[in-house]
Amino acid sequence: MSLLNDTLAAIESVDDKVIEEATKRQNDLTKPPGSLGQVETIGIKLAGIAGAVPPPAPERATIGVFAGDHGVCAQGVTPWPQEVTVQMLMNMSAGGAAINVLGRTFGADVVITDVGVASDYPSDAPNIRRKNVRRGTADFSQEPAMTREEAIAAIEVGIQTANEVIDGGSQALLTGEMGIGNTSPSTALIAAFTGVDVADATGRGTGADDAMLRHKVTVIRDALEKHEIDTHDPIGVLASVGGLEHAALAGFILGGAARRVPVILDGVIACSAACVAASLDPRVKDYLISGHAGVEPGIMAALEWLGLKALVDLDLRLGEGSGAALALPIVRAAANIFQMASFTDAGIANE
Amino acid sequence: MSLLNDTLAAIESVDDKVIEEATKRQNDLTKPPGSLGQVETIGIKLAGIAGAVPPPAPERATIGVFAGDHGVCAQGVTPWPQEVTVQMLMNMSAGGAAINVLGRTFGADVVITDVGVASDYPSDAPNIRRKNVRRGTADFSQEPAMTREEAIAAIEVGIQTANEVIDGGSQALLTGEMGIGNTSPSTALIAAFTGVDVADATGRGTGADDAMLRHKVTVIRDALEKHEIDTHDPIGVLASVGGLEHAALAGFILGGAARRVPVILDGVIACSAACVAASLDPRVKDYLISGHAGVEPGIMAALEWLGLKALVDLDLRLGEGSGAALALPIVRAAANIFQMASFTDAGIANE
Repeated sequence: MSLLNDTLAAIESVDDKVIEEATKRQNDLTKPPGSLGQVETIGIKLAGIAGAVPPPAPERATIGVFAGDHGVCAQGVTPWPQEVTVQMLMNMSAGGAAINVLGRTFGADVVITDVGVASDYPSDAPNIRRKNVRRGTADFSQEPAMTREEAIAAIEVGIQTANEVIDGGSQALLTGEMGIGNTSPSTALIAAFTGVDVADATGRGTGADDAMLRHKVTVIRDALEKHEIDTHDPIGVLASVGGLEHAALAGFILGGAARRVPVILDGVIACSAACVAASLDPRVKDYLISGHAGVEPGIMAALEWLGLKALVDLDLRLGEGSGAALALPIVRAAANIFQMASFTDAGIANE
Repeated sequence: MSLLNDTLAAIESVDDKVIEEATKRQNDLTKPPGSLGQVETIGIKLAGIAGAVPPPAPERATIGVFAGDHGVCAQGVTPWPQEVTVQMLMNMSAGGAAINVLGRTFGADVVITDVGVASDYPSDAPNIRRKNVRRGTADFSQEPAMTREEAIAAIEVGIQTANEVIDGGSQALLTGEMGIGNTSPSTALIAAFTGVDVADATGRGTGADDAMLRHKVTVIRDALEKHEIDTHDPIGVLASVGGLEHAALAGFILGGAARRVPVILDGVIACSAACVAASLDPRVKDYLISGHAGVEPGIMAALEWLGLKALVDLDLRLGEGSGAALALPIVRAAANIFQMASFTDAGIANE
């Protein structure tokens, strides 16, 4: 057995009886039933994930940031030079990036993993787990982004990361990433798995102009045709048009689901990785919480396919895990809300 | 001079130069300019409010919950009996309501003030500031909800509350309320100040059915005609069709603005109070942050009129301050985000 197979074998559905019990408890809390909207929905989901009413609040949470580079940048799909990936990795290493500030603000650990960065960087850069599977993907417009073995190795980096941080006490996994050009493979994956048209799923990433956006659509559409995508083979799709951080995130998500820990998704990269994970086992969806709606159109297509509704929508287009981090306090509140008095306890007239 | 007049005299515009400096700083942080969306917008707003770049993060924050009753309940505009106001007040007093749980979750104080509750309750109920101006409003479908003097007294209760908690170290004010029937006066105020049609601003509160909703529209529309509303006299409008907690919230908002402390609005009750406050001095808008979009249609009309965009939209229809509380972590993050490294500091290629 491999780590991937073991992990897939460990994933179970959540217990409908716990969901039912949590729903009943919510309806007896001192508020009109349903009046806390998504806070109630997420609370019930957390109970299902934990198999307990009330569920534990994820006081300890980890933002898993996976970094990788993308051969498809050679096609001019992003205005940023590839070197920015490693520059931002160094910024995260030093604690200066947005995700570091958000992690500190919300009391979440930021765990950074190099799973596929192309450029060199100092060997003494702190706070980086060196799990590089290959130094950037190949250009998927010309050839498969990676081999099947590389895709599995990168997935297993993500699973290992999930297991390590859960062993260390983490009660929620938040998806983060860094990789110049990584909205292109995300869009390709989302179009492949959801069936939505490439043009409807393609966005500007962190800054494509109109001409670049049209070109990006063409590059992705041509690549999907070229690789003869078969979504019954999710790892094949991932290897053809995905990215190393996408693979690691799919593994991170699978690892969370296998350990019954909630996974809060960030934006389009995380959503595409979730499509891979949920294609490997649809029960993964039970463990997912959508943090942020975001500007990228692929997010909505993926969320609909995954059956999720985003918790916040702050017009973010940064990535890194920022949208997941900003949703974490709401998830904690959703768990804590079970602490409310019940109508029975408080002696209040219920409608 | 009265407390209200002193407070109005102290309200100033935010400094455009500080806004400009904050915007410049945001654009040098290690992210594509604008990529943190509303987190950037709110960060810049907080800098303007504080008159400092970076602004302080509101680690200490207070949810000011104002409770009152409404004579218009006699018209059958809500399915809940009026007694639920005091029952929920006792629940809050004991720490069992949603807002107590959210306050604990986010480290915000909950300060509860009886400004207009009709029913009796035990004199030893803890955690309640007793500032009752009158025991519920009159039925505004028949007569003015309160006198002009009562409206001013209730506004001043809110100003005093703001001053007390700011003197105690609070760095952000969050608006909360409890009052069965209080979406009706809220809708009346929003329709009056924004000019939106009553039917477009009226919602189901915490549970009106279709017939009750139609009746609620008629009651509010007739009342606005009956009282010959003149929005050049905001206190007159408030006295005619408002509520005591609406008046107190307007004062709480004015108090925050006068002391240059950000005010995070909850749902439709807070939005209507903000319309009153901003009609007394439009510069108040500079100090307002919209916490939650909410289910009530009046919220969107008020937010548009106030020039605000809500930070979260979780399908809440509870009130109490729940939507403001759920937005507080985002506001803290918006202040902290200035801690990010700059492109200059981090040696990263800027586009």
